[in-house]
Amino acid sequence: MAKLRVHNIAASLDGYAAGPDQGIDDPLGVGGTRLHEWVFASDYGRRFGGGDAGPAPAGEPSLDDRVLARGDENIGATIMGRNMFGPIRGPWGDEDWRGWWGPEPPYHHEVFVLTHHGHDPISMAGGTTFHFVTEGPEAALEQAFAAAGGADVRIGGGPATIQQYMRAGLVDEINVAIVPLLLGAGERLFANLDGAVDLYECAEMACSDSVTHVLLTRKDG
Amino acid sequence: MAKLRVHNIAASLDGYAAGPDQGIDDPLGVGGTRLHEWVFASDYGRRFGGGDAGPAPAGEPSLDDRVLARGDENIGATIMGRNMFGPIRGPWGDEDWRGWWGPEPPYHHEVFVLTHHGHDPISMAGGTTFHFVTEGPEAALEQAFAAAGGADVRIGGGPATIQQYMRAGLVDEINVAIVPLLLGAGERLFANLDGAVDLYECAEMACSDSVTHVLLTRKDG
Repeated sequence: MAKLRVHNIAASLDGYAAGPDQGIDDPLGVGGTRLHEWVFASDYGRRFGGGDAGPAPAGEPSLDDRVLARGDENIGATIMGRNMFGPIRGPWGDEDWRGWWGPEPPYHHEVFVLTHHGHDPISMAGGTTFHFVTEGPEAALEQAFAAAGGADVRIGGGPATIQQYMRAGLVDEINVAIVPLLLGAGERLFANLDGAVDLYECAEMACSDSVTHVLLTRKDG
Repeated sequence: MAKLRVHNIAASLDGYAAGPDQGIDDPLGVGGTRLHEWVFASDYGRRFGGGDAGPAPAGEPSLDDRVLARGDENIGATIMGRNMFGPIRGPWGDEDWRGWWGPEPPYHHEVFVLTHHGHDPISMAGGTTFHFVTEGPEAALEQAFAAAGGADVRIGGGPATIQQYMRAGLVDEINVAIVPLLLGAGERLFANLDGAVDLYECAEMACSDSVTHVLLTRKDG
């Protein structure tokens, strides 16, 4: 059965998955990029970022690279919160915002953006189309599973969107990278979960040189 | 120079170092013992708990055992908050509370308990004496360093006491075990630190089968 998965969200030791005050210059919040330096430093991250990754590295991929790559395996659609799509709040207005990712976003499939404000779909190069869902998270999930055609669906983020699906018991697995630093402020990853904290257990934990990868799975999964 | 150190405090993935509602039946708060199962399961923990540890294990000690043992090395005195000493709030009253640890506490040195309510020192078997300091954390630190006679001082906890010394920039190292589970409520370890978050950086990180050990040190240390 197709799964709902969270991958490669990163959280600081004090529990923040994004810095405070997200805006056009700080898509991950102030200081939030510090949570992702391990991604930028990975072979996967260099390719994802559109930079010149150079030749494929010899030998086994690193743990970070393996975990990052796993996040793309068998994913047929993505769901994200509106704040992950862009910095605009309230009505969309006239601005032609098309996401943070440039003309060819790295999704290459249907992406469902949760919002209270309707918007026509936006088709991008490389097979990514952003759909804007105003009917709530269950509707987005249904549409995403339909679009995924039997493959899994990934929740891209941010924290509030992940929490919403975890709280509803709909998430099958959460891959989180614990980054050993203190941010001091921002958006907490594992908060507002109420009783849903008891639904999840650790299935895997492993340290790279930079972070600790934890896989949480639903106990009935 | 003698250091102020925090050891083997454990925090959940959602950042709690103790469960909520500490009381006589829940010295670590409700659910808080789940944060310490890795200690109970270690050779160190079995000896510390006064149980029959059996013969010393053959071969190298486990990572958990090595980290736990490090917490006792070169420690000459301990500071703790009043809630770590006991469940009593407000004036001490008539109850003859002598700590959670039975007639022979595992400290074997001078222990300084931060409190707003004066109390005569309590001498226990095995060389532990509890002193009650009403003049604040700096006074407790001064007394503890004097008692330690050149050795380091350990902050036992709880979270509010650790935060108080971290916020003042007085802590030299923090050894924390990240336990891969969600508690959902309790006392946060790394909170209320204000600008002090920028004083600390990760010096070591390593996974055992059960937890991830992180050593934070002061950047100017």
